[in-house]
Amino acid sequence: MSTLNYEHKGGIAPTVSLAETSYRDGLVKETSRFVPEEVPIAFSYGGSTQAVMMGTPADLEDFAAGFTLTEGIIASIAEIEGIEVLQEGDGLDVQVTLAEDKEDALRARRRHMAGPVGCGLCGIESIEQAMRPVPDVSGVDMLLSAADIARASNALNSAQPLHAQTRAVHGAGFYVLGEGLVAVREDVGRHNALDKLAGAVMRAGRTGAEGVVVVTSRISVEMVQKAAILGAPVLIAISAPTALAIRTADAAGMTLVALSRGEDFEIFTHPHRIRFE
Amino acid sequence: MSTLNYEHKGGIAPTVSLAETSYRDGLVKETSRFVPEEVPIAFSYGGSTQAVMMGTPADLEDFAAGFTLTEGIIASIAEIEGIEVLQEGDGLDVQVTLAEDKEDALRARRRHMAGPVGCGLCGIESIEQAMRPVPDVSGVDMLLSAADIARASNALNSAQPLHAQTRAVHGAGFYVLGEGLVAVREDVGRHNALDKLAGAVMRAGRTGAEGVVVVTSRISVEMVQKAAILGAPVLIAISAPTALAIRTADAAGMTLVALSRGEDFEIFTHPHRIRFE
Repeated sequence: MSTLNYEHKGGIAPTVSLAETSYRDGLVKETSRFVPEEVPIAFSYGGSTQAVMMGTPADLEDFAAGFTLTEGIIASIAEIEGIEVLQEGDGLDVQVTLAEDKEDALRARRRHMAGPVGCGLCGIESIEQAMRPVPDVSGVDMLLSAADIARASNALNSAQPLHAQTRAVHGAGFYVLGEGLVAVREDVGRHNALDKLAGAVMRAGRTGAEGVVVVTSRISVEMVQKAAILGAPVLIAISAPTALAIRTADAAGMTLVALSRGEDFEIFTHPHRIRFE
Repeated sequence: MSTLNYEHKGGIAPTVSLAETSYRDGLVKETSRFVPEEVPIAFSYGGSTQAVMMGTPADLEDFAAGFTLTEGIIASIAEIEGIEVLQEGDGLDVQVTLAEDKEDALRARRRHMAGPVGCGLCGIESIEQAMRPVPDVSGVDMLLSAADIARASNALNSAQPLHAQTRAVHGAGFYVLGEGLVAVREDVGRHNALDKLAGAVMRAGRTGAEGVVVVTSRISVEMVQKAAILGAPVLIAISAPTALAIRTADAAGMTLVALSRGEDFEIFTHPHRIRFE
């Protein structure tokens, strides 16, 4: 499995120390603070840009693999033949090479999409398409104790190198029973952090069904969609979920645990995967 | 000025109480919790959808006006002739009617954009376009005391009806010296909350130059862009900024204050608008 440490390629550091004036306890002081970098990250397939995301320049190969999966461009990591990170001005172009039939299919899909431009969710033109069906994970067995949930959340809180430096990025981790937290990925964007994690899990040859996804952020419907596409039966969040995220997790057979703080937490869907002593 | 209270149209309530199982201090309890609603919100111009955002169904007319401004579709609120909110299935279609020449211009821009589909930032196809120029607000005078900053942040924290119910939405407020907080808007998405605020400020016949934008969330480059397009000379955040947000505020002549908590805060750019006793 990939380590818990991030990697960065493409020449732009993921954090930077900048000068600032602090006002604390009535005292003005010239000082500096580490803040997360944020750059435009383009994902290109067959030489054409599919999307530009603002994100933190770390773990870009994981990000590309995860994005390509959770956007439904591929069904398996084996369909990616190569990932190359190029610096382009102030941004990064991540060029993904797919198996040939996949590139043809993507080209056809792009032609179909030309016209109105969808946003918010990637490449989605209408309300119906925004509510895309989510894979069913109800058949994935997993049984966690209350202590496992606290362990997963607390392990994530203390395994975020970029957050430790900046206190300003989101984290997503993969927790496996008996092994603990096996991967953590971070980004200024919570959806990016989860895409990076999905890429890291797949590139390590694991499947989402082997573990639990745990995130520091709030849970939007997109977070549930991405976790379900990865195949994870349980999603744990330190913050709160939206109503649509809860309904979507319920429909997908996913156990959604949120507001996981210290030993406490709240279960919103499918509590049968949690056992209490 | 519009009140501090939200309004909702279109038949979907902005919060909902859902059943959950809570585990607190070792005790399992069947209970319920208010969570924010999240729905696909389409913005349509001349009958064509321009973008679909996931957001909280409140203050939709403000949201449409603010989005139309901060996306550069209009330069002034006077170019909007009407806004109508329609419920479409599980989502909302917000139909915006523009002055005729504006609708023609948007149609031409759409034709130009057909082809690769940009994401993350709306309708932007490349890294260069993602780094769009930001209006200069360096000529806008404003002088705040340290106490004003604390007042603005603390007023925002206690004037969020949806957050009070759910503890799970972002807030954006407009603070005017001598008047206090004159508008607050909320959403599960921080960019949406700021777009709603921009719409509320403009629809009340005010300009961004009259006040300070204060937000609960972290500051991405898009937050700075939106505040600058509104014309606000000062942006105050309760959370931290990214490096690109700081560089962008610096280039735009905007005073960026962040980590504003209690009486303390940190100034990242253009501190000349802040005076210390």
